[in-house]
Amino acid sequence: MNEPGQIKIDHLGIAVASLDAARRLYESLGLAVAHTETVEHEQVKVAMIPMSSSDTGRIELLEPTSEDSPVGRFLKKRGEGLHHVALQVEDIASTLATLKAQGARLVNEQIQVGAGGHLYFFVHPSSAGGVLLEICQDVPAAEAK
Amino acid sequence: MNEPGQIKIDHLGIAVASLDAARRLYESLGLAVAHTETVEHEQVKVAMIPMSSSDTGRIELLEPTSEDSPVGRFLKKRGEGLHHVALQVEDIASTLATLKAQGARLVNEQIQVGAGGHLYFFVHPSSAGGVLLEICQDVPAAEAK
Repeated sequence: MNEPGQIKIDHLGIAVASLDAARRLYESLGLAVAHTETVEHEQVKVAMIPMSSSDTGRIELLEPTSEDSPVGRFLKKRGEGLHHVALQVEDIASTLATLKAQGARLVNEQIQVGAGGHLYFFVHPSSAGGVLLEICQDVPAAEAK
Repeated sequence: MNEPGQIKIDHLGIAVASLDAARRLYESLGLAVAHTETVEHEQVKVAMIPMSSSDTGRIELLEPTSEDSPVGRFLKKRGEGLHHVALQVEDIASTLATLKAQGARLVNEQIQVGAGGHLYFFVHPSSAGGVLLEICQDVPAAEAK
């Protein structure tokens, strides 16, 4: 296996009924919402809350815009709470190949391309201690090389 | 309110049925268990998995040693999954005072002293988007000053 490189917590996605209600707690701590956006194809409004030091991950509050969406169904079934944990890796293709070889159960068999070109795939909670785990890579370095 | 200082993700506590089974996924990613310990008074075995860069948080896998313990009851009720998120602050007394003033629901009304002297308290999920939120401070700087 190749040198895995740096791995860090990229973000925690938290499903909430209301961004306005949920952001208050974090603002009380001294954190601030950097920006909000609506991701139409995911039917979700997102409030991004970076930590004070920029490289230590961020919290993403997720409010569904439709009950019949992944986050909407999660809220209805389980209530508010952690929706997923995202770990950032340096070579997502190598990580995907390794997990497939290990027999991990994956939500996505292929690498997905998200907003801004970042790459990601999800590992099923049954292979990650009950946590929906996103593996992501910020810049498609392997392709850009 | 005082300058809040640096706030970062300290760790994610994940309740699992078996440390040995759960650690494999993270080891596949290229991460390693730095050490394991049993915390007797919490009735839990912990496997600590730091990220590659040491200041970007760690994952703590939590396996209960008794069904009748906080993590044991969590597992029985909800299954494997995220148990708590810990954010590290620089002045925990000020954070506690602020949250009390804002009317946040707290699990601990007083600052607790953990292993190695670190300070912590928990915010109830009902005030933190369904997430059991630990606020911690590594070194009791306010008292040491």
